[in-house]
Amino acid sequence: MVYRTGSELRAAARSGAFAGHTSGHAPGYVQANLVILPRDWAYDFLLFAQRNPKPCPVLETGEPGEPQTSVIADAGDVRTDLPRYRVYEHGELAEECADILSRWREDFVFFLLGCSFTFERALVDAGLGLRHQEENVNVPMYKTSLMCRGAGRFSPSPMVVSMRPYLPRDVIRAVEITREFPGVHGSPVHLGDPEYIGISRIDRPDWGDSVSIRSGEMPVFWACGITPQLAALVNKPPIMITHAPGYMFVGDCSDYVFHLSG
Amino acid sequence: MVYRTGSELRAAARSGAFAGHTSGHAPGYVQANLVILPRDWAYDFLLFAQRNPKPCPVLETGEPGEPQTSVIADAGDVRTDLPRYRVYEHGELAEECADILSRWREDFVFFLLGCSFTFERALVDAGLGLRHQEENVNVPMYKTSLMCRGAGRFSPSPMVVSMRPYLPRDVIRAVEITREFPGVHGSPVHLGDPEYIGISRIDRPDWGDSVSIRSGEMPVFWACGITPQLAALVNKPPIMITHAPGYMFVGDCSDYVFHLSG
Repeated sequence: MVYRTGSELRAAARSGAFAGHTSGHAPGYVQANLVILPRDWAYDFLLFAQRNPKPCPVLETGEPGEPQTSVIADAGDVRTDLPRYRVYEHGELAEECADILSRWREDFVFFLLGCSFTFERALVDAGLGLRHQEENVNVPMYKTSLMCRGAGRFSPSPMVVSMRPYLPRDVIRAVEITREFPGVHGSPVHLGDPEYIGISRIDRPDWGDSVSIRSGEMPVFWACGITPQLAALVNKPPIMITHAPGYMFVGDCSDYVFHLSG
Repeated sequence: MVYRTGSELRAAARSGAFAGHTSGHAPGYVQANLVILPRDWAYDFLLFAQRNPKPCPVLETGEPGEPQTSVIADAGDVRTDLPRYRVYEHGELAEECADILSRWREDFVFFLLGCSFTFERALVDAGLGLRHQEENVNVPMYKTSLMCRGAGRFSPSPMVVSMRPYLPRDVIRAVEITREFPGVHGSPVHLGDPEYIGISRIDRPDWGDSVSIRSGEMPVFWACGITPQLAALVNKPPIMITHAPGYMFVGDCSDYVFHLSG
């Protein structure tokens, strides 16, 4: 079944009835990346996000010890409402799990970050296809040579990007459309030659799946919400919890709330 | 000397004191392409412009027989206020002249069309350089395989584009900036491979001058106000008068009047 709204999907994930990818569910409702850190790392991360708004657009932040959301979803709970989580300890993936109730601590702070699913809806609404959806795979994501600015204990670390190929006319439209969603990665960070940003094998993404690039098409690269997970691998906080890629937090607001005019 | 305002420059062109290019004069004041046609061709041209707004953004249109402007300049006179004119007869360039007082007819209708000088100012204000200005030449312009829609006696004819090279990051910025000026050509019509739009020799522009494209840069192409002159060559109205390329009509409004927010 397809969950129609964010609150339906969150309730199903919370009860254990749903444990799948969130893509395709609750169409039109905002989906978000999750980052949870201990309070003493949270300030550094907030600064990291402030200095790197394209990969890390903050939609909502909790108080220390407070797992309830109130901005992008009414009474969401970040401990239970995502279908799958990743726990990183000292820069290594320690566990994937269905909830983090037993892991939750009084000093944990959550961050919900904008996700490209939001602008993808606007691209599709404007008639621009998504190759990864056409080919029924995950969007390809790459580590780049574009470096995020450092912040406190977060030393500079590579930006992660997602890639969608378009014909030149649609590249221009894609820039125009996505710039109108600055809170969910906004306009691209690169287009054209992948090597220019340190991607040597466009057919070998670091996350997600490879998609075909057809004759005349140009790869277009957007900053990606996986960037903080790479920052965690690099900077090794004692603990950091995130969503598992593709298993997002689904909110109650419409994607179009994040349009410039919204 | 440099004329500081549109009205100063128009007065000097009218008196014959000034006969030069308008580039660099009256900085910040809108400059426009001129097209004059007999009334029985004017409707077809207006329809041509309506169907091809990127190359032909209409800023002002006169009544038949009326040479005075009132929208983009107070009491401008399109017969005298440009430093140089071109007269096309039956699709051939018949004359270049300093005024068209002796040519003016009671059935003539003028059109003033937006010009890329306006968004160039915004590019420069945003820190994006203009290669043709750095190299002190005219912007390169090309006939393309992109076809304008036909309208009445204007059969479909090729779009003319201007080209400015940028690094990928600045290509994205240039799209973002110029889309905010829809009345003066707006966002690009193409970027990347010139052959994709029928340009086989990027180093041999059809109008203007060649500029260098440096390592890592991508050519970016905008619709150009020379397009109607090419339409005249193709469709051969008995008479059509235009500005000479680079000798524009200079108005009284600020370039930023044409910003989306203006």
